[in-house]
Amino acid sequence: MEVERIGPLLAAVREKTPLVHNITNFVVMNNTANALLALGASPAMVHALDEVEDFVALSQALVVNIGTLYSEQIAACKLAASRAQAAGVPWILDPVGVGATPYRRAAASALARLRPNVIRGNGSEILTLAQQTQARQGRGVDSLQGSDAAVEAARTLAKKTGAVIAVTGAVDYVTDGKQLAEIHNGHPLMVRVTGLGCSATAIIGAFLAVESNAFAATVAGLTVFGVAGELAAEWAAGPGSLQVALLDALYALDEATLVARAKIRA
Amino acid sequence: MEVERIGPLLAAVREKTPLVHNITNFVVMNNTANALLALGASPAMVHALDEVEDFVALSQALVVNIGTLYSEQIAACKLAASRAQAAGVPWILDPVGVGATPYRRAAASALARLRPNVIRGNGSEILTLAQQTQARQGRGVDSLQGSDAAVEAARTLAKKTGAVIAVTGAVDYVTDGKQLAEIHNGHPLMVRVTGLGCSATAIIGAFLAVESNAFAATVAGLTVFGVAGELAAEWAAGPGSLQVALLDALYALDEATLVARAKIRA
Amino acid sequence: MEVERIGPLLAAVREKTPLVHNITNFVVMNNTANALLALGASPAMVHALDEVEDFVALSQALVVNIGTLYSEQIAACKLAASRAQAAGVPWILDPVGVGATPYRRAAASALARLRPNVIRGNGSEILTLAQQTQARQGRGVDSLQGSDAAVEAARTLAKKTGAVIAVTGAVDYVTDGKQLAEIHNGHPLMVRVTGLGCSATAIIGAFLAVESNAFAATVAGLTVFGVAGELAAEWAAGPGSLQVALLDALYALDEATLVARAKIRA
Repeated sequence: MEVERIGPLLAAVREKTPLVHNITNFVVMNNTANALLALGASPAMVHALDEVEDFVALSQALVVNIGTLYSEQIAACKLAASRAQAAGVPWILDPVGVGATPYRRAAASALARLRPNVIRGNGSEILTLAQQTQARQGRGVDSLQGSDAAVEAARTLAKKTGAVIAVTGAVDYVTDGKQLAEIHNGHPLMVRVTGLGCSATAIIGAFLAVESNAFAATVAGLTVFGVAGELAAEWAAGPGSLQVALLDALYALDEATLVARAKIRA
Repeated sequence: MEVERIGPLLAAVREKTPLVHNITNFVVMNNTANALLALGASPAMVHALDEVEDFVALSQALVVNIGTLYSEQIAACKLAASRAQAAGVPWILDPVGVGATPYRRAAASALARLRPNVIRGNGSEILTLAQQTQARQGRGVDSLQGSDAAVEAARTLAKKTGAVIAVTGAVDYVTDGKQLAEIHNGHPLMVRVTGLGCSATAIIGAFLAVESNAFAATVAGLTVFGVAGELAAEWAAGPGSLQVALLDALYALDEATLVARAKIRA
Repeated sequence: MEVERIGPLLAAVREKTPLVHNITNFVVMNNTANALLALGASPAMVHALDEVEDFVALSQALVVNIGTLYSEQIAACKLAASRAQAAGVPWILDPVGVGATPYRRAAASALARLRPNVIRGNGSEILTLAQQTQARQGRGVDSLQGSDAAVEAARTLAKKTGAVIAVTGAVDYVTDGKQLAEIHNGHPLMVRVTGLGCSATAIIGAFLAVESNAFAATVAGLTVFGVAGELAAEWAAGPGSLQVALLDALYALDEATLVARAKIRA
């Protein structure tokens, strides 16, 4: 994945303004929608059982995030994911806090079997999903594991699910089971803002809408998000202003800055 | 509607701090509450079936927004709207994304029959509600139609429902079926922040609480919101800082600035 | 409660990053999570009936807030509170808008009987919970009563429930029925940002996770939050920028500033 491919993908998102259907958690709905709008996509947050199938069929990508899951939402996620799969709409799964409870593990595992194009999580989440260990991973929704500790689990999970796996953290890793890319962008302050992992997932969703190669779309999404985060951190005085500046940076990001800042390693 | 009438209405909102009951979507709850607080009203977000009727009876206005609708919420909206109608509490309907799915169309149409004092939507939403065309309007929650394309639909819808209709976009149009006002305020960057249409609806709600003429209240609300948006855009570096600056601008807006900036045409 | 004790408690939150389980309202989920992250805690928003008991057992504190209550959430709050009580996890109740409807009064009263370690509310909310008067207190979710009007009610409620009671307002009062502390920090602009009372509750929750004396934890939480609010108000141009600056201030707050600014009276 060459950095030169990412600029044109960003331009494609901005030109096509893909409709990205999100079934996501209540904590991040606003920020996720704003991140997608700042990037140039057209977000919609739609989760009613009675309309998710109709809506996903209109969309160019689907984002499924279990952060504040509840039984009706799990049913809606399954319906939407199945319909996306049938209709050829690419979709991405964010298994937030999957290690915390049996309920969450069951929901995430069931969704992972519905053939997501991409799964993005932190180290603990990917380790749990890959069942590399019997021990409970993670603590609440934050990771106890660095992303580097989950690279092998990510390869295993990629082979098991057929999905591209992204493990995000100090370094972001992307693998389809064979290829592995590392993205060395982003900033440590980003973990002090809630839901930036969820925003990263949604941004990947927007790139899936314009790039059928899920590996390339995922690397592009994480690179754009990481570079925007770095730019925002240079401006920010703390996590409050970081969140604001991140939206401004996603909006203002140009291809030259992206290419100059991107740190992708194969 | 003369601009000179708006300043006193803004002062009335700030003096009376009307309780505005919102049944709204999960994406914008925080921003809507903050917009109402910044303006000077007292917002409450209350949607439980078991208390919406009690709550609306305490309120000076009701805002109903179907952005992230689900079956129990639709029932709550209907209960609250009926009670508002019976108790003489003015209410406003925001038919978010009504064109996207049959479920959404059915819910919005049912609510529109419960005699809202005002309906506010973008061009696509008003065209769909007015059933000017069989074709699906809009795409997700964003408009595919300029507000100008929906002016005739707005007149039709006003006559059909008895409500004042506001179509917002590059230009905002307000009609009661006879009178038509145009508001040429606002800024293009506002569409890159999620839910500012929902905030506009809530702001109109606050003006309905202090002005029984729904046409005047709607023009006042949209003018205040558009002027605040313009002021915020002058300060903002992008959509993140625009959202922050908009709340500051609503809070700081004085009558002299409002009169100097307002661009209302009959 | 000496101000010198608060700095070490703040350091303990930052060092231990306690997992704070929140069952809270949809308006403030994002801001509450961000306030806890900015402070140095690890927030999780988890409300599904199927997992709240499992989750609370992993947590170091539980925050229960009825702002946008609905029947399933009330059941989840009761389950979680009972489990917290049984497992020795400290928990705090925020009876948002308890005076507004019979539904809300019943829910808050039932939760208050489940032995919360702390209850925090505004003047109207504490007066209602203490049943000092038959008259409906409050209007919507905002207080009609100054915090000073509820001090006696707070003492009564403390004796009745066994909880430490915090009444917040222009002055914050904390009592366990015997001791009374006053905190003269904070800023009037804070009431123009939605849910800062809810954030204060969550911050107290984080201190409960590191300090078993609930009175000391509550005074510490409110002092830290009030000082951060003051610092933010000095920087802010209005309620939008105040919200941003408050998160930055919580993140940057050091012990020296805290001690210099704190205004606690026994």
